Amino acid sequence: MMRRRVFLQGAAAAGAVALLPRRGMAAVTPKEIYTQVEKRHAEALARLQAWVRQPSIAAENRGMTEGRDLTMRLLREAGFTKVESVATSGHPGIFATLDAGAPRTIGLYFMYDVKQADPKEWSSPPWDAAVVDMPRLGKAVMGRGAVNQKGPQSAFLSAMHAIRGAGKKLPVNLVLVAEGEEEIGSPHFAQIVSRPNVQAALKRCEGIFMPSAGQGLDRTVTIALGAKGVIELELVASADTWGRGPKKDVHSSNRARVDSPAWHLVQALSTLVTPAGDPGIDGLFDKVRPISERERGYLDDAARRIDEKVAKQSLGVERWARDASWRQALEDLAARPTVNIEGLVSGYTGPGGMTILPHRAAAKLDLRLVPDMTASDTLAKLKAHLAKRGFGDLAVNMTGGYDPNTTSPDARLTVAEIKVYERAGIKPILVPRSGGSWPGYVFTGEPLKLPAGHFGLGHGQRAHAPDEYYLIESSDGKLFGLDAAVRSFVDYLYELA
Amino acid sequence: MMRRRVFLQGAAAAGAVALLPRRGMAAVTPKEIYTQVEKRHAEALARLQAWVRQPSIAAENRGMTEGRDLTMRLLREAGFTKVESVATSGHPGIFATLDAGAPRTIGLYFMYDVKQADPKEWSSPPWDAAVVDMPRLGKAVMGRGAVNQKGPQSAFLSAMHAIRGAGKKLPVNLVLVAEGEEEIGSPHFAQIVSRPNVQAALKRCEGIFMPSAGQGLDRTVTIALGAKGVIELELVASADTWGRGPKKDVHSSNRARVDSPAWHLVQALSTLVTPAGDPGIDGLFDKVRPISERERGYLDDAARRIDEKVAKQSLGVERWARDASWRQALEDLAARPTVNIEGLVSGYTGPGGMTILPHRAAAKLDLRLVPDMTASDTLAKLKAHLAKRGFGDLAVNMTGGYDPNTTSPDARLTVAEIKVYERAGIKPILVPRSGGSWPGYVFTGEPLKLPAGHFGLGHGQRAHAPDEYYLIESSDGKLFGLDAAVRSFVDYLYELA
Repeated sequence: MMRRRVFLQGAAAAGAVALLPRRGMAAVTPKEIYTQVEKRHAEALARLQAWVRQPSIAAENRGMTEGRDLTMRLLREAGFTKVESVATSGHPGIFATLDAGAPRTIGLYFMYDVKQADPKEWSSPPWDAAVVDMPRLGKAVMGRGAVNQKGPQSAFLSAMHAIRGAGKKLPVNLVLVAEGEEEIGSPHFAQIVSRPNVQAALKRCEGIFMPSAGQGLDRTVTIALGAKGVIELELVASADTWGRGPKKDVHSSNRARVDSPAWHLVQALSTLVTPAGDPGIDGLFDKVRPISERERGYLDDAARRIDEKVAKQSLGVERWARDASWRQALEDLAARPTVNIEGLVSGYTGPGGMTILPHRAAAKLDLRLVPDMTASDTLAKLKAHLAKRGFGDLAVNMTGGYDPNTTSPDARLTVAEIKVYERAGIKPILVPRSGGSWPGYVFTGEPLKLPAGHFGLGHGQRAHAPDEYYLIESSDGKLFGLDAAVRSFVDYLYELA
Repeated sequence: MMRRRVFLQGAAAAGAVALLPRRGMAAVTPKEIYTQVEKRHAEALARLQAWVRQPSIAAENRGMTEGRDLTMRLLREAGFTKVESVATSGHPGIFATLDAGAPRTIGLYFMYDVKQADPKEWSSPPWDAAVVDMPRLGKAVMGRGAVNQKGPQSAFLSAMHAIRGAGKKLPVNLVLVAEGEEEIGSPHFAQIVSRPNVQAALKRCEGIFMPSAGQGLDRTVTIALGAKGVIELELVASADTWGRGPKKDVHSSNRARVDSPAWHLVQALSTLVTPAGDPGIDGLFDKVRPISERERGYLDDAARRIDEKVAKQSLGVERWARDASWRQALEDLAARPTVNIEGLVSGYTGPGGMTILPHRAAAKLDLRLVPDMTASDTLAKLKAHLAKRGFGDLAVNMTGGYDPNTTSPDARLTVAEIKVYERAGIKPILVPRSGGSWPGYVFTGEPLKLPAGHFGLGHGQRAHAPDEYYLIESSDGKLFGLDAAVRSFVDYLYELA
C-alpha cells in the first residue's frame, strides 16, 4: 500500500533505449538461459495468470490462506528447497531458502497480498487475468496484483525456472521473506524478520531486493536509494472519548445546545498544518537530516532528465505546492515529511444533505517520514501536539507504519543493478529516496543493516487503481515485455554472483 | 427534512393527562361526529396504511408521480372539491380547496414526500405499514412516513370523513397547499405558494397549520411559536476551482509536492467556528433579535416542566454545549444561530486506510437562522467570510433553505390550539420557536403574513430513523391513539369556526 514508484509517474523519456541485450550483456549470463526464457514464455505467462486469479486481500481477510499456499507452491516449483509458513499476530508470512552452494547469498522480499478491487470499475475483470490488447503498448495481463507485485515476482520465479531449464545451478544462494500484509501497512512484518532462523539466514545475505517492474511509461528507470517511512492512522473524535457531544447521531437542530465531534475533529486537524498546508506538528522537523551534497547532485540530474510537464499532466496538477520549482518539487518528494489526509468521514456522506449532528468524525491520515525520524517518535509527537492543544481525547488509531530506510549507492546491490540496466541500454535515474514507503527498515536497520531496494525491468501501471496491468508482449520498441523482464532477473543474479 | 419537533425528544411527563375528552370539550363539537370517528376506525387505519405503502422519496426521485396522484385522490375522497397539481422547477405541488360556505377559511400545509429508508435497518419493512405491537405503547403502524407526516395528515382527512359521515358540513372552508420536496429542504415551495390563484386563496385564510402528532413519549405537547430558518449547503474544495492540488486522487506520497484540497477544506472550515465551536462567520449575529421578556417567560416555564435528565438521556449527551444550564440549553435551541457539520466526505472512507491524496473534499453544513436573519443574507455572509480568508475558491452549493418564521401566541390559530389541548387535559408547553425548521416563512412572511404552525394530538416517533411509527391503539392511558388524534382535528376545526 505504501510503496509506489511515484517517481515514475509521468517521468519522461530520457533518450532512446534498446530492447535487446547490448553487447557485453552476455558476458556474465550463459546464453542458453535466454533460450530457455523464450522457450518458457507461455509457462511464465500462465504462472502469472494463475497467481492473479487467486485474490488474497488482507484488508478484506479474503483468500489469505489460499494466497499463501499458492505462493509457497510457486516458490517450491521454482526451486526453493525449504519453504515455511511463518505465523504472526496477523496473517502469516513465508520464509524460504535455496542453497545453491554458491559463495554469495542474496535476499528477496515478496508480498502475497494485493489491494482491494471493485470489479465494476474494471474494463476486464480483476480476477480474470485476461491478456488484453493495450493501444500503443501491446499485450498485457490485466488484473489486480498484475504489476503490484505478482508480475515482477512471477518474472523472477520464471528466471529461476529458465536457469534450471538450461541445466545450470543458481549462481547465488537465495533467502526469501514474504508477507501477506504489505497492502495494510506491514503491521507484523518485523515479527517475521526477527525470527531467529530468519535473522540468521538474512545475516548471510549481501543485500535484499524486491522484484519490481522498473520501467515507466516514458521508458526511464529510477533507482530510489531508500524510501520514506510512514505512519498511517485514524484520528477519531467521538462523544465516547470526548465526554461532550451526542452518543448517537441526533437531529442537527440540537447543534445549538450539543457539542459536535465533527467540529472538534476539524479544529484538531487544523492545528496539524501551517497556513500553507505544511506539517505543523510540534517538533516534527527536529530529526530531519538535511540531504547531502551527493543527494543534491542526484536531484539536479533527475530534474534535468524527468519531464516536469509530463509529471504534472500525469498527476493532474497545475502547480507544485508552495509554487516550488521542478527541482524543488523533486527534493520535496524525497526529503520533506508530510501529513496527508487520505480520507474524511463523518455523518451523512451521500448525495445532498441530511440534517443530523453526527456523533463521530474520523480523519484517515498518513505521515511520511525521512531520516532520522522514526515511526514511534513521530506518533508520540503527534499525540503530544494534540494533547497540548486540548485534543488529547481524540483516538489516535495507528493501523500501520515503519521507519524510513536508506541504501548506499555504493552497495554492491546498487552497483550491480545500475550495471544490468546500463547493459540493457538504460541509464537509470538515481534519487535519494522514494516519496512512497516500503518496510525495508527491517533490513536496513539494526541489527541486519543490509542494503535493500527494488530491481527489475518490465513495465506495468495502475497499482491500486482499476485496470492494473503488466506488459507481456511489447509493441513499443523501447518498452520491455515479460521475457525481457525475466532476462533482467537472470542477469541480475549473475551480476551479483 | 428540516422540521423535527426536537423539543419533544426526551421531554418528560408533566403531570397526568386524561385520554378521554373532558367535560366541556363537546361544547363545540357535535357528538355524532365522535361516533363516526369510532365507527370509521378501520377505514382511517386502512387510509394511513395505503398511503405509507406508496413510497415517495424526492431525494431518490422515487414514486413521486404515484405519491402525488395518491395524495390528490385522498384529498378528493375527503371532500376537497378542487384539487390541482402545481408544476414547479422540481417536483410538483398540490393546491386544493373546499368551500363549505362557512364564514372562516383555514389553511393547511401537507407534504407528500418521505425520507429515505434502508429496509435492512427496520424490524418491520418500511413500506409494509404493518400494525405492530409496541411494548408499553400499544398497536402502531410502522413504516416510513408513518408519523412524518402521513399519520397526522391521514388523521386530519379522517376527521373530514367523520364530519361528512355525521351528515355535517365542514365548519370552516379549507385551502390546502402540499409539496413533494419537504425532505430535501423545500427548494421550490415558494413557487407553489406564490402562484396567483394560490396566493388569492391563502389570503382568505386566518392562518395555516400542518397536521402533526403533537404528543411526546412523556405525554407533553409543545407549541413552538415559530421555527428557525435554515440553509443547507455543501462546501467543496477541489483542484478544479482552487487551481491547486490534483485533478484526480493520486498516491499520498505526492503530498510532499502537491497541494491538498482536503486540508484546504479543513482550514476553511476551522474559520467558521470559534474555539468553543460556536458560529464564527463574520457578522452572523448582526441581525439576531434578542428574545423578548414574554419569550423568556415561556422558556422559564419550559425549563421547569421538561425533564433535563430525560432530555440528555434521549440525546445521549452528558453535558450541554458551553456547559449551559438546562434553562440556557432550551434558550439556545430556540434562539441561537448554528453552523453544523452534517457530514464530511473526502477520499477513502472505508475501513482502515488507503494511501491517496484526494482531489476533492466536501463538508455538508446546515446553518440555523433566527429572526431577523434571512437565508440569502446568511449565505452572502458565509461567502464573504470565506473569500476574505483566501477560501473564495470553495464551491458553496446551497441545496435548500429558507427564512425563520414566527407566529404570535395571541393569534386565533394558537389560542384555539391551546384551548383544544387543554380540553383534552393537556397544558401545552410554549416555546419561542422550534430548534428545527419548516418552510412556514412563505406564510408568515410578506405578503401573506399569516399565523402558521402545527396542530394535532396523536403520538409517533423516529421520523427519519428506522422503525418510524404512529400510534393507533394506545395501551397507555395517557398517550393518544389514532381515534383521539382524529377527534382533535375535528375539535380544532370546530374551535376555529
